[in-house]
Amino acid sequence: MDFALFGIFLLACCAAGATGAVFQPGQWYRELNKPSWTPPDWAFPVAWTSIYLLISFAGMRVALQDGNAYAMAFWAAQAGFSTLWTPVFFGLRRMKGALLVMVPLWLSVAGATWTHLQVDFWAGLAFVPYLAWVSVAAALNASVWRLNPGVDPIVPSEL
Amino acid sequence: MDFALFGIFLLACCAAGATGAVFQPGQWYRELNKPSWTPPDWAFPVAWTSIYLLISFAGMRVALQDGNAYAMAFWAAQAGFSTLWTPVFFGLRRMKGALLVMVPLWLSVAGATWTHLQVDFWAGLAFVPYLAWVSVAAALNASVWRLNPGVDPIVPSEL
Repeated sequence: MDFALFGIFLLACCAAGATGAVFQPGQWYRELNKPSWTPPDWAFPVAWTSIYLLISFAGMRVALQDGNAYAMAFWAAQAGFSTLWTPVFFGLRRMKGALLVMVPLWLSVAGATWTHLQVDFWAGLAFVPYLAWVSVAAALNASVWRLNPGVDPIVPSEL
Repeated sequence: MDFALFGIFLLACCAAGATGAVFQPGQWYRELNKPSWTPPDWAFPVAWTSIYLLISFAGMRVALQDGNAYAMAFWAAQAGFSTLWTPVFFGLRRMKGALLVMVPLWLSVAGATWTHLQVDFWAGLAFVPYLAWVSVAAALNASVWRLNPGVDPIVPSEL
């Protein structure tokens, strides 16, 4: 266990985590039409916190091993796109735009899961809950987009 | 040159790059009081595009070499925080909040520059313009915050 290295990967997750704190869902999200299988509100911070700890552990293990090039590139890509999704969905209310962000996010997480697994079994396994959760999140994004036509986006430059 | 690997690092940069496209500065930014040394508008996309190409090159080189653990962790951290800054500044108009984001962003870029340099001279050198630019951006953020007291933040959940 390299705690400093684990800490830097966890710091990287804090960028995405911070979006959840500063772009609050609020009343607008509560009033959206949502599918029956929408996870309860408390599940989101619990899932994300668990995922951040797991993938920081995975990143730390793989970073210390040979042949980690693609795994590290995918790890970085998911860090960027997971930070992008919340501002687009909650900051701009662009549901279709957020769904488009889900494409590279899902591919980055799938790529990270696969390439971590090639280097280290436990690291690959630690990415599996993330892949499952981001699949649920993408389906939820698609469903909410379909169930709420005509939602006005926020255009900050016009405010 | 491993083009696929370069492409994944460049994809990671697209998350941050997309924030510049969807969170437009607009009239609000134009009317802010800015210091005399503010770079002209055209310099921002030029600087960021150059930086993204340079650090994708750096990431690719270092990812393929031994002893890259800390360099890869810092690369991922800058990917997250560089994606976070624009939504906080332009999406929420929280200048002090954006300045707080600059702290881990600057540290991630400084850490990446230093650790890339330990692994590969050219990769470290490729990070230097990024470190210079993010230092200018942080100073600009601080200056704009000081010169524009009483700017109202956007609170999406109240819209």
